[in-house]
Amino acid sequence: MTEGRTFNGLSPYLAEERDQVEAALARAVGHLEERLEPDVAEAVRHGVMGGGKRLRPILCVSAYMACGGVRRAERYDLGAALEMIHAYSLMHDDLPCMDDAELRRGRSTTHREHGEAVTIRAGAVLIPAAALQALRACAALGCTPQQARAVATELMRAAGAGGMVGGQWLDLLGEGTTLGPDALDDLHRRKTGALLASSLVMGALAAGAEDGVREALGEYGRAVGLAFQIADDILDATESAETLGKNPSDAALDKSTYVALYGLPEAQARASEQVRLACEALQGSGVDAPELEALARYVVEREK
Amino acid sequence: MTEGRTFNGLSPYLAEERDQVEAALARAVGHLEERLEPDVAEAVRHGVMGGGKRLRPILCVSAYMACGGVRRAERYDLGAALEMIHAYSLMHDDLPCMDDAELRRGRSTTHREHGEAVTIRAGAVLIPAAALQALRACAALGCTPQQARAVATELMRAAGAGGMVGGQWLDLLGEGTTLGPDALDDLHRRKTGALLASSLVMGALAAGAEDGVREALGEYGRAVGLAFQIADDILDATESAETLGKNPSDAALDKSTYVALYGLPEAQARASEQVRLACEALQGSGVDAPELEALARYVVEREK
Repeated sequence: MTEGRTFNGLSPYLAEERDQVEAALARAVGHLEERLEPDVAEAVRHGVMGGGKRLRPILCVSAYMACGGVRRAERYDLGAALEMIHAYSLMHDDLPCMDDAELRRGRSTTHREHGEAVTIRAGAVLIPAAALQALRACAALGCTPQQARAVATELMRAAGAGGMVGGQWLDLLGEGTTLGPDALDDLHRRKTGALLASSLVMGALAAGAEDGVREALGEYGRAVGLAFQIADDILDATESAETLGKNPSDAALDKSTYVALYGLPEAQARASEQVRLACEALQGSGVDAPELEALARYVVEREK
Repeated sequence: MTEGRTFNGLSPYLAEERDQVEAALARAVGHLEERLEPDVAEAVRHGVMGGGKRLRPILCVSAYMACGGVRRAERYDLGAALEMIHAYSLMHDDLPCMDDAELRRGRSTTHREHGEAVTIRAGAVLIPAAALQALRACAALGCTPQQARAVATELMRAAGAGGMVGGQWLDLLGEGTTLGPDALDDLHRRKTGALLASSLVMGALAAGAEDGVREALGEYGRAVGLAFQIADDILDATESAETLGKNPSDAALDKSTYVALYGLPEAQARASEQVRLACEALQGSGVDAPELEALARYVVEREK
């Protein structure tokens, strides 16, 4: 299934793709471990290899293949670069001076296991490591230097100012205050949407897709990102810590959420609307990617 | 003076180059401020615009010109990327869970002014910002995509695993334990040497220098970095907090230093030997850069 454009259902697709992503992440962490002191390396491993849906790498690889990319194993190494940035953001978000989270995906957070200093270092080192990972993967996939530069630029934009860091910060601002609809959309467009959109854009860039296709896939990613975040708010409001594998922290911290702002039915309607917009952008792009359409629906229908 | 290869003494050279670097850093911070929330932007400004010798950008620009680079103002933007990485490392190093420093260059450290959470964010955001800064500068200087990719790779290597982060971590390990001569050299080769060497290598790469020239300049940078660190240990051992503008923390934290390991006269001899090696590498490179020779000597003769 991972090698074809035929599509026999989302579950087997996700399972096979996730296995490939896990293998690529294990390679990336192994590469890093040779260059890091043992404690930082252990914290990197804890933060990166802690499970999760691996949605960003899967979106990247899917976009890459849909745009005609080559079927080399190294396409998963490109996807892994995105998960390294995602892992950095979670490790720093969970710190005592940020969200002060004890649990993440049912395990102790990295700083609870490895301490604050090591976790700050390990998170920060993942940023240049992700940039190098993306550049290495582009070389292995036969990208031109122009393509490699564009891919690295996209990744660093999503990881930095104007991208997810802006959104994380808005998240802290939102605690104890109430954000209006526009500010809440802006927060999540940056917090989750920037990296999800870049996942698709990076895949498209590495495959040499035309500008219009790349932009449509980015639009799909932003809509999926917003749907994902609304669905997260809904899950936070309706599930217990046991089911989620993390503390339902949003209510405890009095953060603005879509459920708090709109109520449950309206929040669900807004998530569905974003899925519709995502599928519309996908159809407009002209690429053949049934798994991306299924993924957009999965984002709001998942259980965790 | 900044525009010529003639050289009329180090002091006016450093003063003029530093002014150009400050202007480039102000441009870079202004660019970031448009993309960051106000508090993170202020912390970035505090960390980046807090003075200092601006040694890394000056070394980068000097290597770039010595290798025949074009005389565009944007060469200082390339240098600024290195100072952004340096600023990130200082902001994180000073955090309470790291060195817990109150003073840096005679001012409150960034976290004392802006808090831990904002400082961790601001430091981390400087890493992708520096990568983008280097890529933009390369484009403005007319570098090929291959050169731009090589420059970005060099910067991210120096900023990450195997580069300065490894050294910073060894620094923490060294507290309360005594490092032997080899471990101490390794610590400083990574802590200071990696980014100093990369400053020269990036300048050489952007100018399209041949491999041999680039490697010789990197060797110069590693020797200067080690000389710089030994000189820092000597300054820490002989100067007061008032003169240094920071707390003489090494002795307080019982860190291994060259002075503790070898005594003052032998430490001074070792610094001089590194300066000699630096000048030898410089002469071997065949480039005409009297300011780099003078800079190597300045590193061990400076007062702060």
